[in-house]
Amino acid sequence: MGRDAITETERAAIRTCGAEMAEAARAAILPHFRQPLVPENKDGQGGFDPVTLADRAAEQAIREVLAQRRPEDGIIGEEYGRTPGTSGLDWIIDPIDGTRAFISGSTSWGVLIALADENGPFYGIIDQPYIAERFEGGLGVAALTGPRGQTPLKVRDVVDLAEATLFTTFPEVGTEADGAAFRRVSQQVRLTRYGLDCYAYALLALGQIDLVIEAQLQSYDIAAPIAVIEAAGGVVTDWEGGPVHEGGRALAAATPELHRAAMELLA
Amino acid sequence: MGRDAITETERAAIRTCGAEMAEAARAAILPHFRQPLVPENKDGQGGFDPVTLADRAAEQAIREVLAQRRPEDGIIGEEYGRTPGTSGLDWIIDPIDGTRAFISGSTSWGVLIALADENGPFYGIIDQPYIAERFEGGLGVAALTGPRGQTPLKVRDVVDLAEATLFTTFPEVGTEADGAAFRRVSQQVRLTRYGLDCYAYALLALGQIDLVIEAQLQSYDIAAPIAVIEAAGGVVTDWEGGPVHEGGRALAAATPELHRAAMELLA
Repeated sequence: MGRDAITETERAAIRTCGAEMAEAARAAILPHFRQPLVPENKDGQGGFDPVTLADRAAEQAIREVLAQRRPEDGIIGEEYGRTPGTSGLDWIIDPIDGTRAFISGSTSWGVLIALADENGPFYGIIDQPYIAERFEGGLGVAALTGPRGQTPLKVRDVVDLAEATLFTTFPEVGTEADGAAFRRVSQQVRLTRYGLDCYAYALLALGQIDLVIEAQLQSYDIAAPIAVIEAAGGVVTDWEGGPVHEGGRALAAATPELHRAAMELLA
Repeated sequence: MGRDAITETERAAIRTCGAEMAEAARAAILPHFRQPLVPENKDGQGGFDPVTLADRAAEQAIREVLAQRRPEDGIIGEEYGRTPGTSGLDWIIDPIDGTRAFISGSTSWGVLIALADENGPFYGIIDQPYIAERFEGGLGVAALTGPRGQTPLKVRDVVDLAEATLFTTFPEVGTEADGAAFRRVSQQVRLTRYGLDCYAYALLALGQIDLVIEAQLQSYDIAAPIAVIEAAGGVVTDWEGGPVHEGGRALAAATPELHRAAMELLA
């Protein structure tokens, strides 16, 4: 089955399942957030790494929802790998994107959940459990549900680099050559900011920023952002303009004009 | 009057006033957060900059609370300057610290409110209106009140740079020499992260990170963080170990050992 064969009823079932997965992940993760690390003792026993525990607990919780609700779908998870399905649809899960943010207590980490067919992701959720924000895109929906109600997700219409806000997580941005390419774009934009992990993609979909450039991504890092940003009207490709849902170097842009301008500088 | 002359009753009154100021600022700012910028027309008319509007509205709201509750105190505000008082106490206000985070829709900006005597700040609030988090320190209190309840503020006991997490807002960190000094510390720590504005000080007080290094600060950028971090058991000075409440280059550390080690590398 591909995305085009999904009925209205099936769409609603997928969205219900997505919401349940995100809720289950929140419940599994939040008890571990901002908890102290307990190092291993000399025998390698008793170690307690809150982000690893939270990561695994969240993926298990998500897999339990899928086992109940949609056992026919495949699963590709960051923690527990690939479980093949029979429906032609795969859920791609990063239970905690932004583990370094998580262990620092900041709130730019998130739960990434995407649904893909053979052409890539077409439905996604970026969930921030602590703030209680859920960015959902695809299957006809593009919305943020957060502590201040619901807001449509829609990219803004910035077309000039000189007016754009650019985000990336680490100032180094991948290899040395990747970093140099990034800085060619950074020098042309109005504002460059760092450190937001998956939350930057969410802000792009929300129309708050205009470009996200990252390198060295895994498929589960980018699948949900692709679906959410495309649903909000944006463009996500690799640095050469090809599909990036298998991972690698991602360029997300609010408009085709910005996307083209950034791609030329990255080349 | 200095901090030592403040009675128990007066402490409670100051804290009530601080909470009212923070609430008034939240109400003034949130309608402007994540709103689109409307540029000026050709005549320089009609411009609408949400962060400037929010900044001014918040400082006005805070000043109205003080006019009602504590007209005898002085005020030093980022937007409206200095209003002298007669009590010997000054409120130092940054209505929105992190304007670049604010205009990007991210949540690391905050409202900074501090109370100082002639020796500097001794009570402070770092408030994040969107997440609804308030970090309060001084006058015998050190607590976070947030969406998941109340948590004590207490720095953690990391003493080795090799185990420390370091934050700064901009990778450049002030002048070129400042940046080079910062990188000497950054190369020794376990993890360096960027981009959190005042929220990094809050995470240090919460025991989540260990070092914050910044340059080119104004007094209103650092007054509230000093009070909150000191109340949580941490150390905040300039890069030479002297007082930093007048602004400049700040070094905040969870422990005296970390503070000393970082200061040696910054010198």
